[in-house]
This record gives sequence, structure tokens and C-alpha cells, in this order.
Amino acid sequence: MISFESDYTTGAHPKILQRLAETNREAMPGYGSDPYCKSAAEKIRAACECPEAQVFFLAGGTQTNAVVISSLLQEYEGVIAAKTGHISLHEAGAIENTGHKVIELPQAEGKLEASSVKNLLEQFYQDENHEHMVFPGMVYLSHPTEYGTLYTKKELTAISEVCRQYQIPLFMDGARLGYGLMSKSTDLTLADIARICDVFYIGGTKVGALCGEAVVFTNTSMPKHFLNHVKRHGALLAKGRLLGIQFDTLFTEGLYFEISRHAIEMAEQLKKLFKEKGYRFYLESPTNQQFFILENEKLELLKEKVRFGFWEKYDEKNTVVRFATSWSTTMEDLQYLREIL
Amino acid sequence: MISFESDYTTGAHPKILQRLAETNREAMPGYGSDPYCKSAAEKIRAACECPEAQVFFLAGGTQTNAVVISSLLQEYEGVIAAKTGHISLHEAGAIENTGHKVIELPQAEGKLEASSVKNLLEQFYQDENHEHMVFPGMVYLSHPTEYGTLYTKKELTAISEVCRQYQIPLFMDGARLGYGLMSKSTDLTLADIARICDVFYIGGTKVGALCGEAVVFTNTSMPKHFLNHVKRHGALLAKGRLLGIQFDTLFTEGLYFEISRHAIEMAEQLKKLFKEKGYRFYLESPTNQQFFILENEKLELLKEKVRFGFWEKYDEKNTVVRFATSWSTTMEDLQYLREIL
Amino acid sequence: MISFESDYTTGAHPKILQRLAETNREAMPGYGSDPYCKSAAEKIRAACECPEAQVFFLAGGTQTNAVVISSLLQEYEGVIAAKTGHISLHEAGAIENTGHKVIELPQAEGKLEASSVKNLLEQFYQDENHEHMVFPGMVYLSHPTEYGTLYTKKELTAISEVCRQYQIPLFMDGARLGYGLMSKSTDLTLADIARICDVFYIGGTKVGALCGEAVVFTNTSMPKHFLNHVKRHGALLAKGRLLGIQFDTLFTEGLYFEISRHAIEMAEQLKKLFKEKGYRFYLESPTNQQFFILENEKLELLKEKVRFGFWEKYDEKNTVVRFATSWSTTMEDLQYLREIL
Amino acid sequence: MISFESDYTTGAHPKILQRLAETNREAMPGYGSDPYCKSAAEKIRAACECPEAQVFFLAGGTQTNAVVISSLLQEYEGVIAAKTGHISLHEAGAIENTGHKVIELPQAEGKLEASSVKNLLEQFYQDENHEHMVFPGMVYLSHPTEYGTLYTKKELTAISEVCRQYQIPLFMDGARLGYGLMSKSTDLTLADIARICDVFYIGGTKVGALCGEAVVFTNTSMPKHFLNHVKRHGALLAKGRLLGIQFDTLFTEGLYFEISRHAIEMAEQLKKLFKEKGYRFYLESPTNQQFFILENEKLELLKEKVRFGFWEKYDEKNTVVRFATSWSTTMEDLQYLREIL
Repeated sequence: MISFESDYTTGAHPKILQRLAETNREAMPGYGSDPYCKSAAEKIRAACECPEAQVFFLAGGTQTNAVVISSLLQEYEGVIAAKTGHISLHEAGAIENTGHKVIELPQAEGKLEASSVKNLLEQFYQDENHEHMVFPGMVYLSHPTEYGTLYTKKELTAISEVCRQYQIPLFMDGARLGYGLMSKSTDLTLADIARICDVFYIGGTKVGALCGEAVVFTNTSMPKHFLNHVKRHGALLAKGRLLGIQFDTLFTEGLYFEISRHAIEMAEQLKKLFKEKGYRFYLESPTNQQFFILENEKLELLKEKVRFGFWEKYDEKNTVVRFATSWSTTMEDLQYLREIL
Repeated sequence: MISFESDYTTGAHPKILQRLAETNREAMPGYGSDPYCKSAAEKIRAACECPEAQVFFLAGGTQTNAVVISSLLQEYEGVIAAKTGHISLHEAGAIENTGHKVIELPQAEGKLEASSVKNLLEQFYQDENHEHMVFPGMVYLSHPTEYGTLYTKKELTAISEVCRQYQIPLFMDGARLGYGLMSKSTDLTLADIARICDVFYIGGTKVGALCGEAVVFTNTSMPKHFLNHVKRHGALLAKGRLLGIQFDTLFTEGLYFEISRHAIEMAEQLKKLFKEKGYRFYLESPTNQQFFILENEKLELLKEKVRFGFWEKYDEKNTVVRFATSWSTTMEDLQYLREIL
Repeated sequence: MISFESDYTTGAHPKILQRLAETNREAMPGYGSDPYCKSAAEKIRAACECPEAQVFFLAGGTQTNAVVISSLLQEYEGVIAAKTGHISLHEAGAIENTGHKVIELPQAEGKLEASSVKNLLEQFYQDENHEHMVFPGMVYLSHPTEYGTLYTKKELTAISEVCRQYQIPLFMDGARLGYGLMSKSTDLTLADIARICDVFYIGGTKVGALCGEAVVFTNTSMPKHFLNHVKRHGALLAKGRLLGIQFDTLFTEGLYFEISRHAIEMAEQLKKLFKEKGYRFYLESPTNQQFFILENEKLELLKEKVRFGFWEKYDEKNTVVRFATSWSTTMEDLQYLREIL
Repeated sequence: MISFESDYTTGAHPKILQRLAETNREAMPGYGSDPYCKSAAEKIRAACECPEAQVFFLAGGTQTNAVVISSLLQEYEGVIAAKTGHISLHEAGAIENTGHKVIELPQAEGKLEASSVKNLLEQFYQDENHEHMVFPGMVYLSHPTEYGTLYTKKELTAISEVCRQYQIPLFMDGARLGYGLMSKSTDLTLADIARICDVFYIGGTKVGALCGEAVVFTNTSMPKHFLNHVKRHGALLAKGRLLGIQFDTLFTEGLYFEISRHAIEMAEQLKKLFKEKGYRFYLESPTNQQFFILENEKLELLKEKVRFGFWEKYDEKNTVVRFATSWSTTMEDLQYLREIL
């Protein structure tokens, strides 16, 4: 059965496996001090056009969010996020587990608005009781969002300006960043993001790696003894090479972008297919996740032949489903899907 | 330069890489619900002769310790460990980060003694102020220990009996368990361990995997909603297959034991070598880590030609060093070392 | 200057000070094991008509919320509360500091609705991803609410039924419970509350004590080793007598109810006064907190002569203010206020 | 029955109760912003001869330790303490509950030694693996210690010098500080302590108050938004006046010192009594806690007539017991005790 269930259903891009095999017998020091971690960091700094950036590799997204957020916040601070943000909804309270509140804001198609962030901060400092409240100490957003949507350069800059006015860092969850960068409708480059955000991560797990996220602190903002933070969260791999080699490969000859571009092209085909067949779109996503509204009966028939994600109930008779593409999606998969639809 | 620095300096056993490549395009559900995780768990249950065991895969040792300990302890409990235990010394406070005290006991060559555990528990319950103290809620020990030493079946059983008397679980950190099982001087089998301990883990990272530890709850003692505990600690890999495939390979045709046996044989050769050359042993280790006392001048010369671990200062003129073998140690490495020594 | 700023601006009811003085030289054991704590607990059980209740005394409201909630929740659970709940907004993240999420729901005049609680629970268990989410493990509500409003017996029962259906405890923050019980428009008695809730507290600090809240576990639901939970939160007073004597006094000859009734009567007079003078009410509160909408200019004039609380901006020209009465509010205070208005 | 069980068995010094009564009807703002908190802080700054000190009032000792330590430590740091320190042994893991390790050192009669602190710090920074360890970020000591013993000025200065060399704060738990200051054998004044320590607290609960500890940050070292730290630990009393009025009274006309001196004089009489009667001293304590070794049979007889504390088993036939004096100990109590002995 073919699967459009998510972008993490298959293994890694073959070049990654090849490099893991080629380097397998090289003896290297552990915990991220190997030459591949260093080389990968160097290549990422170059790709970000941010020579002073500090880069650290972690294994997964929730882990990265928890380590970065808890190491940047003061004890009495919380993190602002959209109500639909991954940290708000789908990380099982990993942020609260570090002692910090996720201060939830309304969103539009998964995106925070600069005005609502500004409003929250203004009201907080005007409130006479704010010493009895959680200090808003950081803004978290995901790009692409959980709905596959993207911030424009203008929107992201506006949020960043609010953050800089209030001197709190802006953190971008880039679990699917590649798909955002390669989307036809984005005006944000990796260099823009490195310039606008204080810290972000370049997702590997969902963009062709076995696992791994590359955290980029753009302005020497990496917390002191960050390695120690990582270790005490149980997030430091002994064989750090596993992350170093993967990211070194992803940032050699533009593989990360190539993988992302491929998935975007497959997603464009997918959209076309659903449009042709007259399906309703839940929202307009310019990235590798596509959300459709299916009649429940249709859904039951479809799921016998193809795997996809259930998103949410739309109404009594319809359901929102998610189809995602990845490095491993092929034209044959799409052809097969066309026949089914 | 050859390296005896640790058992995690090289990549994975080639069979693991091969299986990752062979299965790479198979689409599987995420988060540990793939067929390889299921199959690996089944094989581990069989190897443990413990059909009711519950098996869960995590990425690294510190992470496993933190997740297992915090999910098994009540809020007001702490974990008993040797002062030299990995959780006491070298996990950057990962246990305290979950809110629990590590109650440290003296040790002998890295091992806890049943009598001192019993004594602590007895005194605790006799103390009139014990409601003002941390309840000892669990015993943690590593096997092999941080010094490469091993518990005998009698010693481990004695500790287990104390735990059962006080109804607290016994947890074995088996980051290097394979080397313990294949040691010439052990009388403990994997089935013994599964019978004696309430929970333990079978280390992959240091025994031939890229990463991964298999947690085994032996008596349906897995905490309710354990997946949720894992997730909120940021320890749930999206591509859980990475762990499943590795452990499935390790427990196919006894690969785990074969890797371990090889490293033990290399360690035996290593010991012989050092003995022949008249080096002093810091202690007698029956596993893959060997500790020698080197004169500081010798050490300086040696480290130009071979990599090894600095353990601790012995006295003004001498240093304790650690040599470790692994799946990738070869007779050529030893031959080369012989020439250097 | 007279003050209607809050119900905690003056000291304790004189009978409390008198009893503290009378018992001052009696030597008693510490940490809540003194005879006054025992006697107070007995009187509270009687007042609640709940002979099996377990009663524990703590010093303040935020502390009580944090200790009760964290000791009742499983590690992977969060607490449902209104977005305007005290734990959501005005406790500086004390709940998140214990590692648990406050799952915020919309409210009406400060009150949760049974239907929205039920809806949240239903959706949670229907969601395929719920293992990646925080389990809703408890319902928190305040009575009176932060807006001085009250649940009816029907409303509270409906919420309780949802909780019992899902087997999660219902916890009432009764920081101002006395004012709720003595309100003219309530149909809930203390015995009702003890029957409907699994745990609640009877607020002392805001109802005539120097400090202190009496936690009542109604159905032998007190967590095991609760004293230890209290201690490790730094919430165990050495001179527990301070709480015991106060609550023993408050529950002797109905003092708690007398204090509350007095404040309610003063609040009724206050309402009448503001109504007569044509002021706008922000909402209709049946308890000791009253919320008015003042023109900003009027407010500036008024605050030169009387102290009251600023609640929130109403619009550009108007502000919501809070007037509160307490055991120490007198007819003279009201007379003076009438002259000012 | 007379009681020498502890220094917190009776209520408050009568002058405190009197001032609470006199100020009872004064309306004051809450949460420590009342005039008595301000005045008490001013008097404490004067008594410490430390005009730049920042003073904050909390309710109890464990609470104070947890709030101060967690607000001063970085996330990755732990606190060094004696193995017998109150935070190590008798606070139910309150420090670990804030996520920080208590790094335990051996002690002599309850005291840390500068050399062992220095040794630990030196070894830590020499250790190649120290990024995998908890950073020692603070030194905690109690004065008087849990055994009633005292640091000399030289000893305390030596520890302080180590701290300053490593730029970590020195924190003194002064739960019984008064008794240390008034001991016949101390050479440390309050001004010395304020000069030598970075933060300490002046215990009220055990020195004549109903509750309350005054935290003194001596060198503008109070953590930013300390009030917020206090609030999120549930440690902020609404009626902060309760603490302000008590400390204002204690630091008016030297009451704090008078209370302490009285208890010391009573303790001197007590020692004389036990010496005369030929009892064995467990150790030589110069403060208000005295430790004797009683034969178990004697102990049984004695406890029918007088209350005292059981400290620990000495051997099979003997027990260490604690007798403590306080503001309320009288010559009659001693006379009665003499007759019993």
C-alpha cells in the first residue's frame, strides 16, 4: 500500500546511508566533538550567511524545543506560542515539564500575528499585577506551521521587531524548514531567517534524515554551557557522529534543498490531482503537507488503498485529512493515487 | 592513530547499516509502532525468557535513566545509587532535573552492597523524622559498573531481595550489558537478570548500534502511559524504526552476543598485553573496559600514538587511564598497540 | 484613608488574635501535629458533614493550589481551568513550576461550563494523537470565582458528573469560600460542596485569618504521604499551631460564617450605594467583591480619598475597578464612602 | 509536662503578639509592600551595617532555602552542602524538587571545611568530563549547624574566599542565627556575616516569631524579579504584614538579640545541670541545642516527665537526645528538670 501518511514514514535519503557506511570505521570522539559535526556546522553557517552562528545538533523536535526554550528562559518566564503550536498541543507538556508556561495566543491558519504578540506584551507590562504573572520571555513559532502555511518576510519581520522592542528572543521551530524554503510562494531565504530570528532549527528528521535537528543560534545567543543543558535533558548522543554525518551530507552540494524541492514538486502534483478530481481543500498550503476535506464514506474507501493522516473532524459527514510528501515520494506513487481517486 | 578511547568511537556493526539500507524505502508508522520495533521486542522477550516483559526503545543512556526513574518514582521518592554511579556523577544532574534526589551510597569497585542498601532502608523507616526526608523509592545499579566490574548472581539476588522486602523496584543500567553477559567470569545470564530485576536496559549505543537502548520491564511493571512519559521528556523519535531495526538486527542470530564476545576477547588480549609488559592494573575488570596506572611521562609518550581515556589522577606521578574495546577492535589494532608498548 | 482595596488589607479577626495570645505558652509538637490542628480538623469535618474527610492546613492560596494539584496529578497529566482562573493567570506559573500544564478553557463571568469540560475530555479521548498530548487529569475551579460570581448547585453538580464519568478529581479553590456560602443568592451549602467536590479548600487568609487555608479531601482521596508533598514544596510550617489555632477559632461558634456574613452585608450596602449614585456595574456579583465601571476622571478624583483595586481597562475613557469588603469593613466606612461618591 | 523538645514548641514572644494586635486594623497593601516590611528591612540593613542590602521576608526555612537556591543557581548548577546539612537530609528533597542537585560533602560536627570545598571545585574544573557533571554553583552552610556548632570568623572567611575565587555565592542558612550571634564562644557579628556571605537569612520561626525568615542579599545580589520567584514557589503571603510586623518588632530595641541571649543563658544552665549530674555530651555545642547520650532505660524514665528530641541511636544501649531552649524557657523549667534528673 502506498503511504502519504507523513514525511517520516520512510528511512533516510540514500546519500545519508551511504555516508554513514563510508565513515563507519573512522574512530571519532563522542558527544558532538567529532569532525563531521564541526564540518556540518561550518556548512550550515555558510548556508545561513551567518558566520558567527553557533550550531548544535539534537535528535528530535520536541527535545530541541524543550532544551532550547528552557535554556533560554529565565525561571520566571514563559514562552508565547500559537494555540495550535506544536509545543502547545502535541508535545505532551514537554515545555511545562521544564517548569515553563506556554502562553497561548489565537492564530490564523497556524500563524501568530505580530499585533497579537505586541498586544499581549503591552498589556502584560501595563498590568499592575504583572509580578503575579508569568513573564512572556520568548516567542515560539513554527515555519512551516502545523498547517503547512508560511510566514511572509514582512510578517516574520514584524514579529521580530516586537521581540526586539521587548528584548526577548524569537525562536523558529523549523522541523520542516526545508519545505518552507523551497515552497514556490515563499519570499524568505535561509539567510533571511538567520537574520530575523535569534534561534531556529533546521529539521532533519522530517526532511530526509534518520533523525536530527540542527539548532542555530544566530547572534552568539547560545546559552552558556549549552552542552550541559543538553546533557541534563538526556539529549546528548554518545555517537554524536550520527547527527554530524547526516547534516554534513545534507549540507553538501545542496542535498537538503534538493530533498525539499522534490517533496514540494510532489506536493504540487498532489494538489493538482485533488483539484482536478474536485476535492475540497481545508486550507491553501504551499508546502509538503496538504489538507483535504473528505466525505466520511469516501475516506473509508480510500484508506483501504492508501495511508494518510486523519487531522480532525470537519463536521458530522466530513473529515479533514492530511497528505504529506517527502524525499521518497515518487511519480509512481502519484500515478497510483490518481488511479485510486 | 588507533583508538581505545571508548566503545562508542566508531559507527555501527555493518549488519546494522545493511539492514537500515535494506528497509529504507519501507513506509512505516512512526513513534515506535513500526513492525521492526514489534519484532525486536518479541526477540528480546525470547532472549530474556520473559514472555510477559514490556520492551521500549529509547535513544541514549542518560535519557533512559531519566525517563525510567522519573516515571517509576512517586513524586516524594528518590533513587538509591552508588556514589560512583553514572546517574550520580556523569549525567549532569539529569535525575535531579526530573525533581528526584539521587541518594548516594558508598561503593566497592563501583558496586553497591546489599547490606548497605538494607541498612539505609532500615534506618530510614526507623527515623522518627522520615516524613521530612526523601523516601528511598528505587535502587539503581549499573552492570557492568562504571569500573567494568560485575555483580555475581548472589550479590545481585541479595540486592533484589532487599528491594522486594521493601517493595521498591530494582533498576539495572545495562548500557554495556552485553560485555557483562559475555564476560568469562560472570554467572549471570540475560534470563537471570530479567528474573532478578524489575526493569533494566540492554545498551545498544555502546554495543554496536548507532544509538539506542532497549528498556525491559520484566513484570508488567511498565508505568501507565509510558509513551506519554517518553514524549514529554523529548525522548520519542519520530522515526522509531531507527531503533527498531537496529535492535531487531542485534537480536537476530545472536549478533548482540557475538559483538559483545568479540570485544571481550579483544579485552582479554589487551589485558595479556599489558600484563606481559609489566603495567599495573588499577583494578581487575572482567569486561571490555580496562584500567591501568601509567606514569605521567609514559602517558605523554603513549598518547602521541594511541587514543585512550584519562580516568583520574592516581598520585603525583601516575594517572589512571581507560582502554576500551568494541565491535570494531581488531587484532591489527592490538598488534600495533603491542609494538607501541 | 479608607480602603476597599481587597479583603486582605487588615489583620485577623480579633478573636483569632485573642486565641493566639491565650495559647501562646502552651508547648506543642510542630508541623501540624498539635492538638489545635486536630481539633480544627474535627470541627471542619463536622461543618462539612463529612466524617471521613481528611483535612490539612497550609499557609496561602497559590501554595495550596500547587501542592494539591501536583500531588494529585500523574506526571503526564494537566489540570483543566478557566482562562481567567487564578492558577491560569495570577500565580506566576506556580502550577507549571511543578511540571504540569494548565489546560485553559473559555469561561463566562469567571465560570467554567460543564459542557465545555465534557467537550474537551471527549475530544481528547477521540483524538488519535492523544498520547502526544497532555492528559486532562483534574478540574480546577474557584468559588467564588475571580469575578465574585458563584456556581449554582446544578452547575457544580454537572461539572462533577463529568469528572466522575472520566474519573478525574474536581478541585475547588475556596480562597473566598465563606463569601460564597453566605451569599444571599447561593443554593450551595458547605456539606453540598464536600459531597460534590473531591477536594477543596476553605480560605482563611481572605476570610479573617492572618494566613491559612484548610484543604479538605472529601473521600479519603488525600495522596499518600501528603505531608511529604507539603514539605518538599517548602509549605510545612514548623509552628503548625499558627494555622491550627486560627482554624479552630474560625470553626468555633460559627465565626467563619459570621465573618463572611458580615462582609456580604457590607457588600450589599456597597452595591446599593453605587446603584443609588448611578454607577455602572461591570457584572452582577453576589459576593464580597464588586466590580464597577468608572470614568477615568472620576477614578482619579476618587482615588485621592479611598483605596480600591484597578481591575482592567474597560475602554479608552473607562476603567473597571474592584471594591471588596471584609471582616473589618464598618458602617462608618460605607457612610464615608457615600459622602465621597 | 515541661518541654525541651525544640525551639518552636511555643508561640511567639509576647511583644510580637502585642504589635500584631496594635496594628491589626491598619489597612495595608499586600504581598510585602506594606510599611512594616519596609521598616523591618531598614532596621535589618542597619543591624547588618549593610546599607545596600536587599531584604525579603518568607514564611519558613525549607521554603527560603528552595526559593533562594533555585533563584540564584543557573539551570545546570547544583549547591554544595554538608552531608548533614538541612537541605541534604531533612527537607524532603525540596532542592531537588527545583531541579538542582545537592552536592554533598563530608563534615565535622556539622561544619563544612574550606579545604574540602576548594578541593571539590579544583577537581571539578580539572576533570575532563566536567561538562557531563553538575556545576558546583553555590555553597550552602547553616550557622549554627544542625548540631548546634558554630563557624569561627576564620573558618567562614576561608570558605568565603574559596567562593569568591570561583565566583559562586556563599549562602548561610540562619534558621537559628540569633543563637549563633549570642553564643559566648562566637567571634562573628551580624555585620561580619553580612560582609562575608552573599546571602543569608535571619531565622524568625525558631527565634521567637510565629513564622518568618528574613532573607538578606548583601551585595545587590538579589535575583531579578525575586518577587516573581517567590510567587511561583507559592511562598508569597497575601498578608505580608504578618512577616513585616514580626521582624519590625524583633529588630526594635534589640528584641531579636534579647530573645537569643535568653535562650543561650538557659542553655548554659542546662549544660551545667547535665554536667553536674554526670551525663555524657554527644558533642560540645555553644548554642541553644544540646546533645546528650542517654542510656535507653534512663531515656524511657525521663520521657515520662519531660519532652525532648530523639536524635539518633548511639549504640545498642544508648541514644543521642536533643534538648533545646528558646524565648519561653524559664528558670522554673530548669529547676523542675534538675529535680527530675
